[in-house]
Amino acid sequence: MNIHLLTIGDEILIGQIVDTNSAWMSRELTLRGMRVTGNSSVADTREAIIAGVEHAARNADAVIMTGGLGPTKDDVTKTTLAEMFDAQMVFHQETYDRIVAYFNKIGRPVSPAMVGQATLPDKATLLVNKVGQAPGMWFERDGKVFISLPGVPFEMEYLMTCEVMPRLLERFPTHPIAHRTLLTAGEGESNIARRIEAFEDALPPHIKLAYLPALGQVRLRLTGVWNGAVKTDSVMRLNTELDAKIAELEAIIPDLVYGREEETLQQVVGKILLAQGRQFGTAESCTGGYVAHLITTVPGSSAYFPGSVVTYSYEIKTKLLGVRPETLTRFGAVSEETVREMARGALDALGVDVALAISGIAGPDGGTPDKPVGTVWMAVSDRERMVVQKHLFGRDRLKNIQLTGTYALNLVRKFLVGEV
Amino acid sequence: MNIHLLTIGDEILIGQIVDTNSAWMSRELTLRGMRVTGNSSVADTREAIIAGVEHAARNADAVIMTGGLGPTKDDVTKTTLAEMFDAQMVFHQETYDRIVAYFNKIGRPVSPAMVGQATLPDKATLLVNKVGQAPGMWFERDGKVFISLPGVPFEMEYLMTCEVMPRLLERFPTHPIAHRTLLTAGEGESNIARRIEAFEDALPPHIKLAYLPALGQVRLRLTGVWNGAVKTDSVMRLNTELDAKIAELEAIIPDLVYGREEETLQQVVGKILLAQGRQFGTAESCTGGYVAHLITTVPGSSAYFPGSVVTYSYEIKTKLLGVRPETLTRFGAVSEETVREMARGALDALGVDVALAISGIAGPDGGTPDKPVGTVWMAVSDRERMVVQKHLFGRDRLKNIQLTGTYALNLVRKFLVGEV
Repeated sequence: MNIHLLTIGDEILIGQIVDTNSAWMSRELTLRGMRVTGNSSVADTREAIIAGVEHAARNADAVIMTGGLGPTKDDVTKTTLAEMFDAQMVFHQETYDRIVAYFNKIGRPVSPAMVGQATLPDKATLLVNKVGQAPGMWFERDGKVFISLPGVPFEMEYLMTCEVMPRLLERFPTHPIAHRTLLTAGEGESNIARRIEAFEDALPPHIKLAYLPALGQVRLRLTGVWNGAVKTDSVMRLNTELDAKIAELEAIIPDLVYGREEETLQQVVGKILLAQGRQFGTAESCTGGYVAHLITTVPGSSAYFPGSVVTYSYEIKTKLLGVRPETLTRFGAVSEETVREMARGALDALGVDVALAISGIAGPDGGTPDKPVGTVWMAVSDRERMVVQKHLFGRDRLKNIQLTGTYALNLVRKFLVGEV
Repeated sequence: MNIHLLTIGDEILIGQIVDTNSAWMSRELTLRGMRVTGNSSVADTREAIIAGVEHAARNADAVIMTGGLGPTKDDVTKTTLAEMFDAQMVFHQETYDRIVAYFNKIGRPVSPAMVGQATLPDKATLLVNKVGQAPGMWFERDGKVFISLPGVPFEMEYLMTCEVMPRLLERFPTHPIAHRTLLTAGEGESNIARRIEAFEDALPPHIKLAYLPALGQVRLRLTGVWNGAVKTDSVMRLNTELDAKIAELEAIIPDLVYGREEETLQQVVGKILLAQGRQFGTAESCTGGYVAHLITTVPGSSAYFPGSVVTYSYEIKTKLLGVRPETLTRFGAVSEETVREMARGALDALGVDVALAISGIAGPDGGTPDKPVGTVWMAVSDRERMVVQKHLFGRDRLKNIQLTGTYALNLVRKFLVGEV
């Protein structure tokens, strides 16, 4: 089945926001075996919406619209859709009650605009929005499906996951499809490609490999589409085949793999700490708390993470971590000697079993000829062992912080399991 | 003049990359008074490209295509364009020489594929690409312009800036357009809409207001299009009019506005700290270092941010911040009493002039009937004054952390300028 994604609203056309919704939807639909054949954006005027929807429907079985449903601007989108699908706008008590209950729950006053939010085309099947105000709408015409969703990302994601995709799969059955993802850190796409070239060349045509690179990480995703007759055991056999292939792939690059599927490095590190019963803390300079933030995005991280210190200045490095002033003046804050003392100091200051210390030059200023912007030292220690690494990243401040976060968490992971 | 942006290639349709090119082009074109009336993505097949270009041209004076020009996949795009514009594919020696010189400069071997890169439709005006291999192409047909650019972001940006936009402005003189953006925090879209309803209703037709919401923040953008005859002072008069309108808007909601245009809350807070010559630090529990991370994403933040402590456990709160064990056992970690002691402790521990303390229940677990998930206490103090706030956010851990970050930075801003 073919799907067209249509974004309604000016924000994208004038470039004030980046269209991350379409990327999210494309990825999730593709993963479920549906095909996104096109996407487009139109302004939120009656004429633009009509032209956009008609164009979208030309080569697609389903059109998924996002945006144009906020409390201040939903009139045009909804009334235009009502006109296109020959519907009347009616007040919907159940939706109104749900909006009022939602506002009460989050402790906000209910505004008169909410009556407008609950006035909806009567031909639409309403998709209940449990995380926001505007419900999604599902229309059918001439065998095609037209879906309208709010543009707020987490509301769109909730409605797509819980309402839209299950209904689409029921309405348009597809060939079984399955995925396996291997997570790697610390090596670039082209070097990985060289190491797994023979594996990739030997893949059968119904299994495809995709490289999904992010900062410091590459996800390797195998997608298999069942290409025989669909029988009761087809899904099981496809899964078995993919399990074997992904194990084969992991065996070629065991040193790069940190996990599978949707795990994050911080989740993997958390699981190991929990299993080993060890307490962990960080002493961060150039990352400014970013690694502590990553660690604490994981629910339940308080079980192994009592705390952290962000030591930007010399004084705080000395005061909180006991780094010797002589070390700082002699070797500088960005040096092997300093991160070693920071790691040792963090073990005591935080009372943890394992500590990570980071000091570097995030940029854009502050570099010197022998310590250019992007130089980062990191150390991890458990009192018995201390492992130190030096990296040289780029010139972009935010990228340097994020790359350091990835490399540091991967270093901690390898330290914990004895790979370094 | 109306422009349609067309992205060619699978990467966007399968959700592998986010389309940041369209956002960049839309913003830059809009800023120069050109109007992006639509954008779309198609696969890199002959049929999809032809259908995409014809649709794009229907309501636009110019179509700007990106992608489909890489060394491994440029054949389809270029030959399809040659077919559409009745051109022949010819080898272009000058382009070939430029590619060879470029490869020599970056120290890479020249591959045979480069001959293909230099084979181009003879009807195209070539746009010289000084930062990459593939030149841009400019076609004209029936009074409309069709431009093809490489999809690599910095090559596209170079060609747009140095070649495409100057030519477009010469080819299609436009009406002046201008924007002003007001940044607000701490109030939702619908409540803001109610407070500024009279202002919005009284706007002249050539000035439009847009609400751009994000977590805990709403940007209010005024867009003005000059609607009189274009004279030498038109741009100046439009800007003057918008300056007056944005000042009028700010005067209605001064309590919500934290900045203008592209600023972030952490930049605004940093600027105030720098101007006041004050040192700032954080003591974070449920945000786990996220606020420190936000603060330190700003270049030069070391001038006012010596450091921070992340105190997840009771023990660390006591050890690093001197929070009394009795306070923790009697009132709990998530309480007014605890954040007060944390803020006081942070002033001393970090040796700063102003400290922010945060303690809450990020979730998804750990809530109780009287302290549900999403409960957050925050305090800001400078030894003389202490301001404490309690918030109740939602159930999503990451959203709670991000909302707390926004509200906390806004509280610090108001505290620094004496608004609380």
